[in-house]
Amino acid sequence: MPYQAPVKDMLFVMNELADLAAVNALPGNEDATPDTAEAVLEENAKFCANVVAPLNNPGDKEPSYWHDGQVTTTKGFKEAFKAFGEAGWQGVQHPVEFGGQGLPKLLATPCIEMLNSSNVSFALCPLLTDGAIEALLTAGSDEQKAIYLENLVSGKWTGTMNLTEPQAGSDLAAVRSRAVPQGDGTYKVFGTKIFITYGEHDMAENIVHLVLARTPDAPPGVKGISLFIVPKFLVNADGSLGARNDAHCVSIEHKLGIKASPTAVLQFGDNGGAIGTLVGEENRGLEYMFIMMNAARFGVGLQGIGVAERSYQRAVAFAKDRVQSRDLAGSAGPVSIIHHPDVRRMLMAMRSQIEAARALAYVGAGLSDIAHNHPDAAVRAANLATYEFLVPLIKGWSTEMAQDVTRDGVQVHGGMGFIEETGAAQHYRDVKILTIYEGTTAIQANDLVGRKTVRDGGAVAKAIIAQIRATEAQLAEQGGAEFQAIAKHLAAGSKDLEAVVEYVVNNMKSDIKGVFAGSVLYLKLAGIVVAGWQMARAALIAKQKLDAKEGDASFYQAKIVTARFFADHILSQSSGLRSAIVEGSAGVLALTEDQF
Amino acid sequence: MPYQAPVKDMLFVMNELADLAAVNALPGNEDATPDTAEAVLEENAKFCANVVAPLNNPGDKEPSYWHDGQVTTTKGFKEAFKAFGEAGWQGVQHPVEFGGQGLPKLLATPCIEMLNSSNVSFALCPLLTDGAIEALLTAGSDEQKAIYLENLVSGKWTGTMNLTEPQAGSDLAAVRSRAVPQGDGTYKVFGTKIFITYGEHDMAENIVHLVLARTPDAPPGVKGISLFIVPKFLVNADGSLGARNDAHCVSIEHKLGIKASPTAVLQFGDNGGAIGTLVGEENRGLEYMFIMMNAARFGVGLQGIGVAERSYQRAVAFAKDRVQSRDLAGSAGPVSIIHHPDVRRMLMAMRSQIEAARALAYVGAGLSDIAHNHPDAAVRAANLATYEFLVPLIKGWSTEMAQDVTRDGVQVHGGMGFIEETGAAQHYRDVKILTIYEGTTAIQANDLVGRKTVRDGGAVAKAIIAQIRATEAQLAEQGGAEFQAIAKHLAAGSKDLEAVVEYVVNNMKSDIKGVFAGSVLYLKLAGIVVAGWQMARAALIAKQKLDAKEGDASFYQAKIVTARFFADHILSQSSGLRSAIVEGSAGVLALTEDQF
Repeated sequence: MPYQAPVKDMLFVMNELADLAAVNALPGNEDATPDTAEAVLEENAKFCANVVAPLNNPGDKEPSYWHDGQVTTTKGFKEAFKAFGEAGWQGVQHPVEFGGQGLPKLLATPCIEMLNSSNVSFALCPLLTDGAIEALLTAGSDEQKAIYLENLVSGKWTGTMNLTEPQAGSDLAAVRSRAVPQGDGTYKVFGTKIFITYGEHDMAENIVHLVLARTPDAPPGVKGISLFIVPKFLVNADGSLGARNDAHCVSIEHKLGIKASPTAVLQFGDNGGAIGTLVGEENRGLEYMFIMMNAARFGVGLQGIGVAERSYQRAVAFAKDRVQSRDLAGSAGPVSIIHHPDVRRMLMAMRSQIEAARALAYVGAGLSDIAHNHPDAAVRAANLATYEFLVPLIKGWSTEMAQDVTRDGVQVHGGMGFIEETGAAQHYRDVKILTIYEGTTAIQANDLVGRKTVRDGGAVAKAIIAQIRATEAQLAEQGGAEFQAIAKHLAAGSKDLEAVVEYVVNNMKSDIKGVFAGSVLYLKLAGIVVAGWQMARAALIAKQKLDAKEGDASFYQAKIVTARFFADHILSQSSGLRSAIVEGSAGVLALTEDQF
Repeated sequence: MPYQAPVKDMLFVMNELADLAAVNALPGNEDATPDTAEAVLEENAKFCANVVAPLNNPGDKEPSYWHDGQVTTTKGFKEAFKAFGEAGWQGVQHPVEFGGQGLPKLLATPCIEMLNSSNVSFALCPLLTDGAIEALLTAGSDEQKAIYLENLVSGKWTGTMNLTEPQAGSDLAAVRSRAVPQGDGTYKVFGTKIFITYGEHDMAENIVHLVLARTPDAPPGVKGISLFIVPKFLVNADGSLGARNDAHCVSIEHKLGIKASPTAVLQFGDNGGAIGTLVGEENRGLEYMFIMMNAARFGVGLQGIGVAERSYQRAVAFAKDRVQSRDLAGSAGPVSIIHHPDVRRMLMAMRSQIEAARALAYVGAGLSDIAHNHPDAAVRAANLATYEFLVPLIKGWSTEMAQDVTRDGVQVHGGMGFIEETGAAQHYRDVKILTIYEGTTAIQANDLVGRKTVRDGGAVAKAIIAQIRATEAQLAEQGGAEFQAIAKHLAAGSKDLEAVVEYVVNNMKSDIKGVFAGSVLYLKLAGIVVAGWQMARAALIAKQKLDAKEGDASFYQAKIVTARFFADHILSQSSGLRSAIVEGSAGVLALTEDQF
């Protein structure tokens, strides 16, 4: 099924909710005008729909495969990735200095969503490359930047993140890979890394592995981890490619989904040592890796939104096309199933959550731009804090949401949904990794509880709640059933969220396990309230536009209905979540291990 | 991973919640003593664990395949099915007269759950055969019974249900297959049937297709559908197999899950007509098919419970084995992940919902036994009405629950869950069909709203709520935080359910689409409240046992904790569901088709 990018909704969110004008006003962002944004989105939408989306199903049917250390990607991927790089899409948000377009994150964000709607397996390669670029920009030496950045930004080379080892999944303290200094500024790296996305492939001339390893005298735990660049091919002084490095792919995984994306087991140093160079300072590897990780977490949230959108489009098309059973309120012949209330309920649940998650993520992107480029340090700090609060929601909630949405996406198709040829099932399979990689939902929730809530005594959370209250006041001024419903559920939701923030802050010391027993539920509650708030804001703006008779009335009317649906069906879950968090930890923790 | 049947919980539910003693006291059920039940369950558990469970993963890796009209099932299936029949497991609940064991449904139910935990693809064949047996017992002629029943009950032959056609999925009014009388008591059947489970295979000597078709002068719509027996091989007067009938498998589907279960496209009559005989009276086919369908719906509910249980066992084993990260409350080295609160929360969510769904289903089985065998017609009628109210919950809620559970089952495994070799992902894929076949969740919800709630003005629903209130009174007499939590959430849940029943009954005429916009949510609400009630009953009984120092204290303590978890985390969703049902229909229905 063709993919049609929801450019209208994207532009609405960028302009009206994420304040593109404010981002455009920042120093260095002069080019990011609304008109440029529209032109970039339209162009990206075409590229994604025409070049990348058609490869999605083929990638599932004929996954990338390993043979004798080499990975051959699905037919067409190599050419598509070349076109992607040449068209400049890898470089959208990267510095002009290294060949990028230097556009703000807010503008790159819809492009990343579109790429993921088109083909999440394909999109992973640029996503990891983005992370490598970020890490090198922040912590790389001038020499490293000179050698690697331009080639990464152009898509000529690609990047990987090498964290996980067989005994060290989420727990990086357990990393064992070693890096031994050679006295010439280089290191020999030894170890096994697993789950390395695009750890080997045939789409680029070189692969730049960013690898966590320990130097000989490193302290134990996470404080003894350093970050190394270990390229697949060594790079000569003139920039040309040199010898094959001792970093080899020994196998790739057989997975539930994202089958075209090769997930590699990499052996470093089996033949004498893989040559690498240190990034930044010794023992600060985890800090640098978190730069990649945080960029990647935001990106994974967009993957959830992207796949959910594709699943929604597929379900809508099927529901309009498939004729089955009479209309409940009519006596004529059979109708298309979009007339049946429960099909419609599923489509609205899909649609409203996607729109809410999109708004949440794009607003986050705008905050990030302000946090990085605003001239006033206090404004930067405040926006950074809010952005960082949102990242676990964008990653955690959007990806859990995507699993709900793709499940409904299959369900709308009835029996056809279970047949692989239909395509709905691929989305259901593909999204299951999104709540796992780059930190499981529980790890996002740990971050939300620990670093983002308890550390500042809930200050950022409460500042967000205060902003929500301001929106509630605006809602109260509106008439009509829609706004009453939105106002009611947003007020209840923000109250529930406030109570939970208090609970988390107040009980962290006395009952740490009790607090963490509800951490994922807190993430979900915060997700639906903050995203629901964006939908409420969207409804208010839509109302203004309608009152002013500006723009596309049908779009704005639909936005208000969708915001109302979100309030009635999703925000209404807040009281159950609050009760489970605040009162439900004893039942989580009471059994002994033997009783399981 | 080996499967270990939860026989202790099964026996607890049978004896304490589903009143096996009352079922045993019914005429004809004298053999169904608690001791017999235990012996049957232990024996079945061994058979399932040793013979059927080991074939589950092989069936996924090497699915049944089609070649030239023949289907070859996964290696080992044929032998296992032969052993299954020879051991008498197909006949557990069928009449002794036809070679069965004549045991009540309550005793067959755990056997079916175990078979589905072991291998849901395998279990589908006996499930469909059970349905065919039920239909022939009810509507078959003496001759048909004589020809078919013994061979079906022994597992020598198997049965199928042929409803769906390419243009007629959920809407049987659209069935087009034709049956033309030949004047000799037989018919020639013509048509295409799709999605026919075990429509062709190599595990039995003959396949007995039960086929919906229209006779030449049949009225249009569902009132013109008749039911025919169309065997794969015609049966001679002496019972031996005769000519190959004109019913052929032209392909099987490539599916998301249950890959070992062949899903056939069958062509009837392409070479002159498939010979069939009419079951019961002309034009009453739908009624007879519903006999199969209702038995099968209950069975699909057990499939959900069975797969969820297997997924839970796998997750528990992994969580105890996998060592990763320190304990939140400790400073020692890494611990097994079952120590981490969110892993535990997922395991408790899985466990509590499985136990609740099991209790709901087994209680339903007990009601069905009383409904069929009690000497007093009024008692029969009352139990039948309650059972029929529960069937859409058992089918609809247990299978939706199984999708939640298997999703958590993958999540507990982290990255390993996404790797197919681990086995967790198979359950996630397998269960997706359960909310679709034998009537989607929306169709179960239509049944719940229309036939089970509105038709009697909510009388049965209210009678159940009255029983729940009696349990609430008992809960209120208990001390302790566990019972307070259970009492609070059950009371809130039953109140929400009552309000929704009123809403459904009162608004059906004035706002039919509004009512059906919340039908699936009503099903979920009724599911969690009625299943939560069973957990509350279980907790009360566990408390009695503990007070009396009877039996396994650890088991009873765990039951109380699990009931409390269900109340805090699942029952607490009731207020959100109520609000979405009662107030949320406008948002479901407001968009025009073009706005999607």
